[in-house]
Amino acid sequence: MFRAAIDLFGKKGWAGFTIDGVARAAGVGKASLYLRWDSKQQLLFDALAARASVDVSVDTGDIRSDLRHLGGQLLGMFWADGGITYMRLVVEGAVHEEFAEHRDRVTHPTVLAARQIVHRATARGELPPGTSPALVLDAILGATIMHVAVTPAELRDVARERSDQYLDQLVDLILAGVRGVAKESGDH
Amino acid sequence: MFRAAIDLFGKKGWAGFTIDGVARAAGVGKASLYLRWDSKQQLLFDALAARASVDVSVDTGDIRSDLRHLGGQLLGMFWADGGITYMRLVVEGAVHEEFAEHRDRVTHPTVLAARQIVHRATARGELPPGTSPALVLDAILGATIMHVAVTPAELRDVARERSDQYLDQLVDLILAGVRGVAKESGDH
Repeated sequence: MFRAAIDLFGKKGWAGFTIDGVARAAGVGKASLYLRWDSKQQLLFDALAARASVDVSVDTGDIRSDLRHLGGQLLGMFWADGGITYMRLVVEGAVHEEFAEHRDRVTHPTVLAARQIVHRATARGELPPGTSPALVLDAILGATIMHVAVTPAELRDVARERSDQYLDQLVDLILAGVRGVAKESGDH
Repeated sequence: MFRAAIDLFGKKGWAGFTIDGVARAAGVGKASLYLRWDSKQQLLFDALAARASVDVSVDTGDIRSDLRHLGGQLLGMFWADGGITYMRLVVEGAVHEEFAEHRDRVTHPTVLAARQIVHRATARGELPPGTSPALVLDAILGATIMHVAVTPAELRDVARERSDQYLDQLVDLILAGVRGVAKESGDH
């Protein structure tokens, strides 16, 4: 049921999402769905809430491992469905006020995790003071989702197999970036 | 007409996009639209094609200026509508085969521009040999769109005013990153 709801949302977005459509796709009577859910919104939000979410408690004691772990979870989530569910949620959240709250429930834990990862690394002296958690997260989250979204269908399997390599490159780039920027500022 | 079509696509996505809906939003008779467009797909693609596109011919002779220029255009485009049209296009392109081709017409020029910017900078010796244009573009494109998409509505005006500062941080991060990674490899 939830699987059918997520698939329909991914394929059609909010405008094409209906309880009847979910019932059809799942091969069940729509009456049973209406019994359980008052609105299509509640059905979708329950389905989204039931998805495996990102484990935000990562704390390996090392900034590179922490970012690899966070990025790996994001990349795995995006490859599972081409990043469609997440992008749909972000775009519907930008358009519809009632979606913004639910989008935040999905995205905020990642934001908080990124903030804690960066703050702990700063406290350990692994990252320069003042490193922006938001910029680090924009870069990891944005790059991984764009990487998945714009990889042509025929190259997906190859790209997916190279996920570890991609993550290494991305995390190295970001870490060298924040350290390099701090060093250049310090040299002035 | 095109404005109404883009707005409707942004609000509802492909599933909620109809010629009748565009006629209603634009306040014109739908007969006149059906006279001009055979399908809702052709109407939307014409509207998307008529949008101001990214100027990909940027060549300032300096990698920082080139990336600032490209990133500034992307960020400006995303702020104009919350990044909605671009995200809709990317997600519909991932879901519907007929959208993939049009998405590519919109996104490929940016990919080519990024490739040329990075290759020229490598040739000038500004960037280390082997710098990945794809990774640089994923980071700039992904970070700018996520930055816009996840900024809460009440903070948008402030964030938009700080676009130059954000771009400086982002481009500095990426440039320091690719140089730092090369340096660390060279030190091994």
